[in-house]
Amino acid sequence: MSVTAAAGFEAAGVAAGIKANGHRDLALVVNRGPRHEAAAVFTTNRCEANPVRWSRAAVADGRADAVVLNSGCANCYTGEQGYQAARATAQAVADAIGCRVDDVAVCSTGIIGHQLPLDRVLPGVAAAAAELDVGGGPRAAEAIMTTDTRVKQAEERSPAGWTVGGMAKGAGMIAPGMATMLVVITTDAVVNAEALHRHLVAAADRTVNRLDVDGCMSTNDTVVLLSSGASGVTPDPEEFRMALTAVADRLAAAIQDDAEGASHTIDIEVVGAASEPDAIEVARAIGRSNLFKCAIAGGDPNWGRVLAAVGTTRAAFDPFDIDVTINGTRICHAGAPDADPATVDLAPRATHVLVDLRTGDHTGMVRTTDLTHEYVDINSEYES
Amino acid sequence: MSVTAAAGFEAAGVAAGIKANGHRDLALVVNRGPRHEAAAVFTTNRCEANPVRWSRAAVADGRADAVVLNSGCANCYTGEQGYQAARATAQAVADAIGCRVDDVAVCSTGIIGHQLPLDRVLPGVAAAAAELDVGGGPRAAEAIMTTDTRVKQAEERSPAGWTVGGMAKGAGMIAPGMATMLVVITTDAVVNAEALHRHLVAAADRTVNRLDVDGCMSTNDTVVLLSSGASGVTPDPEEFRMALTAVADRLAAAIQDDAEGASHTIDIEVVGAASEPDAIEVARAIGRSNLFKCAIAGGDPNWGRVLAAVGTTRAAFDPFDIDVTINGTRICHAGAPDADPATVDLAPRATHVLVDLRTGDHTGMVRTTDLTHEYVDINSEYES
Repeated sequence: MSVTAAAGFEAAGVAAGIKANGHRDLALVVNRGPRHEAAAVFTTNRCEANPVRWSRAAVADGRADAVVLNSGCANCYTGEQGYQAARATAQAVADAIGCRVDDVAVCSTGIIGHQLPLDRVLPGVAAAAAELDVGGGPRAAEAIMTTDTRVKQAEERSPAGWTVGGMAKGAGMIAPGMATMLVVITTDAVVNAEALHRHLVAAADRTVNRLDVDGCMSTNDTVVLLSSGASGVTPDPEEFRMALTAVADRLAAAIQDDAEGASHTIDIEVVGAASEPDAIEVARAIGRSNLFKCAIAGGDPNWGRVLAAVGTTRAAFDPFDIDVTINGTRICHAGAPDADPATVDLAPRATHVLVDLRTGDHTGMVRTTDLTHEYVDINSEYES
Repeated sequence: MSVTAAAGFEAAGVAAGIKANGHRDLALVVNRGPRHEAAAVFTTNRCEANPVRWSRAAVADGRADAVVLNSGCANCYTGEQGYQAARATAQAVADAIGCRVDDVAVCSTGIIGHQLPLDRVLPGVAAAAAELDVGGGPRAAEAIMTTDTRVKQAEERSPAGWTVGGMAKGAGMIAPGMATMLVVITTDAVVNAEALHRHLVAAADRTVNRLDVDGCMSTNDTVVLLSSGASGVTPDPEEFRMALTAVADRLAAAIQDDAEGASHTIDIEVVGAASEPDAIEVARAIGRSNLFKCAIAGGDPNWGRVLAAVGTTRAAFDPFDIDVTINGTRICHAGAPDADPATVDLAPRATHVLVDLRTGDHTGMVRTTDLTHEYVDINSEYES
């Protein structure tokens, strides 16, 4: 159940000394082929990190032989020196595994505004290359963790004989247009780069792009999808997209569940919308309300804060014809009080908010979490 | 230094029993004339509270004789019953002071989704009317407090013989398009309603509309401006606008300084922008970054989180040509590290963030605060 679940992939995760605590901090995922098709989607933050700038160009031709990822340093706002550091990292991988430098994608996560310590990264790449293994997925998943408290992996196996596997990291700075989220998904299905890209965009749109832990869009978000074709099986496109979406969705749910300081996960489902964009806009607005997120942390099913968030959107709705249901209890009907909020059970960690706009038949879902002391602690203490 | 500082105004603040704690919770401000010119601006939240619906219509004709305000209940999402409760409150004031019901503005703040307890509000109106006094401003200012920890008042006296005075409440749910902010400003200058409206829109745009404590737009925000003309002096329009803006700005600063749980106020100044809207958009984006606000709470001048927020805007800028200065120390130059962030002194409560987009010569400022444990506490414990 890892990034090496699909045939044709090897991975490693080593401690290169980038993190001060000595934990694993450098991961390498290598596609041994026979095919080397690739696609990727990136943050839409205009202040993008150097590894994003590098990888966007590297994957543009639809080929990647490897992805190298480090935690402990985002290599963002590090100027030309930082861009050259991303390039040097890719070159070290290319030298170690024997491929072209521009067939290596680079991902970084960690502190912004610090130069990548190449004196540790380059030996780390060599060490990782020496440990590459078909069983290396879990170690790679461990090496990309920052404030994550557990590794995040997922896998789908098709009866047709192909597999999709993946790993992710991400716990904070999680907002649409992805997150401080690095995701690598691999498959041995035979799918060309153009189709990979199409499937990846569709899958990301419904999964990682609907996570919003803190409304803060990252500079480093990257999702890379690699295909080795090693199963020799060309999948049914619909089945492949579903499997890919399932893996991405499970990784997104794992990020939500491990979100910084969260005491509740909150799935915000909007129904009865005039369009899907309306549903998503409303769900996002609720998911970004600090007041609502604090209320859930305190066990208060505060539907007034839900409607206050809905009122900031451009979606079609009538304020006097909205229903809000939390964990199965409808506490607002037609924009006015319904069942007693005291009857809502907020003890479970998983929280479900259902908003019915009663305008159309479109739906949408956004995943978020509550806002707690621990979120503040983690983000107050994380050093510059 | 209060809402009764200008000649022609009386006010009162009483405990009507709307708040469970027995504190003052009903305020009345009455304009004794000779003129009764009025203007108001309201929340742009589409889910607006019943008192907003009532007052928008009441003030539309440019006349108001009184403003009645209650804390303890927002009268929002309370349906037709709630609208009738706002009207009944206005009628009680009209009966008590002898004016038309639609010359009474109504403002409410407090819990959403609860019906206004008219059995307490109506006797409260009678009690307040009986206590109306030219020295009643401070008691009125006390009666509109919710999670505010102190009263908020301001005053400007013109050498020409007229005065502008005001009061405000607001501590959370503070976002552009105002805040859960109720403001009443009075003047004895002779200014007609049309000019009052023009000056109020201009003053609000640069003051209360540039406060963003938590990104949560309220359903009840109201700023009412009343002119009695009792000074007999027609002011210089420019001087009047400056005085009005100064009062509104001081009230906005008081709200910022009393923001829920804040350990730092943060003034975000953007310079070098291609336009003023660009400057404001960038300042707002920074002011809404939970990550940045947590960093300041923790004493960490995290300029990377500043740039990550800038990158989410549509403003004109080059990510490799931005400077960030915090409390006088430039720690980011041309999008890369500059002075050591450890040299930034974040001990003072007042924090100044200066972002130079180096694109044009427009500027803009937004006021916010940091994000602390106490903010989470206040908003977790505030009951539905």
